Amino acid sequence: MPHISLPELPGIRGPMAFRPETAKPLNDLVEVLLRGPNTLTPGERELIATFVSSRNDCHYCQSIHGAIAAAHLDGNEELVRRVKSDFNSAEISSKMKTLLNIAGKVQQDGKKVTELDIEQAKKEGATDLEIHDTVLIAAAFCMYNHYVDGLATVQPQDPSLYRERGKLVAREDYVAASRGNVINPPAAELATR
Amino acid sequence: MPHISLPELPGIRGPMAFRPETAKPLNDLVEVLLRGPNTLTPGERELIATFVSSRNDCHYCQSIHGAIAAAHLDGNEELVRRVKSDFNSAEISSKMKTLLNIAGKVQQDGKKVTELDIEQAKKEGATDLEIHDTVLIAAAFCMYNHYVDGLATVQPQDPSLYRERGKLVAREDYVAASRGNVINPPAAELATR
Repeated sequence: MPHISLPELPGIRGPMAFRPETAKPLNDLVEVLLRGPNTLTPGERELIATFVSSRNDCHYCQSIHGAIAAAHLDGNEELVRRVKSDFNSAEISSKMKTLLNIAGKVQQDGKKVTELDIEQAKKEGATDLEIHDTVLIAAAFCMYNHYVDGLATVQPQDPSLYRERGKLVAREDYVAASRGNVINPPAAELATR
Repeated sequence: MPHISLPELPGIRGPMAFRPETAKPLNDLVEVLLRGPNTLTPGERELIATFVSSRNDCHYCQSIHGAIAAAHLDGNEELVRRVKSDFNSAEISSKMKTLLNIAGKVQQDGKKVTELDIEQAKKEGATDLEIHDTVLIAAAFCMYNHYVDGLATVQPQDPSLYRERGKLVAREDYVAASRGNVINPPAAELATR
């Protein structure tokens, strides 16, 4: 049971409906990071988000972003599982492996990222922007994970729920998909209807 | 030296100038959380941010938010230091102590927050919204801290630099204060000038 009275929605959707004022920048951030124009594909960026959520042991986030990643990657759920358990043996690019190495260190403590980690990523062709976004995706998912767990949100176990929602979010985007969360629209929004 | 080529600005201001698209939601979030309408004062919310940044050992974030907190609290730097080292002995409300206890657990792992932690906060008069915002401030500063450290940003040691900037941000707000960060405004912004 959630620690505070939240609308009955799974995971982050509960507190987002509870507090639309903070939901907006939270959704805008994930939209830019995971879906905005980028040389990393949406599938690759969702894999980074899933990996970090898995390291933070956040059931909801790793399940939903794992499902979105799979939806972007032709339904390849086995690849998502492999990235979480042992990314070095996964069928992903060498560049992605160096980026996941950086993301894993940021998840623990940003100060653990070494010059060698960065050198390896650059050697595999990672740009400054790709490194920046990897670091920020990893840092941002530390926020989303701790937020979702810190409020003891409802986190369903049934994988099919995540699979369906994952397909929807992959097809639309975060901002559009989150509209279904808004149970009590803020006054300003009501006034303009 | 930063891991990637960043504009020469301290702490988070470097990557924010480098990537204005992500800077916008990052600034919007901190503005709502720390300066938006709230029953917790800006000084109290800055103390939570400072405390979490200190637990994450992020020099830049704990220094700048500590300075902003002090600016909101009649320049009481000793109170800021006390909150970081032993908040239970600090001259803050009993409610704030229960909220800092929750924030400290979210900083480690959201799952560490217990029903008893929440009960204690509610007993001291904390509302659901105050608990929500405390959890999200703590989670968000895990993001800001890991981001700032993960890119090895420049983090000056001189306290007077933070003191001056702290007064400025406390007087204005985050969105206004961050305008000085934008060295290369995004194309869309230029087009509308």
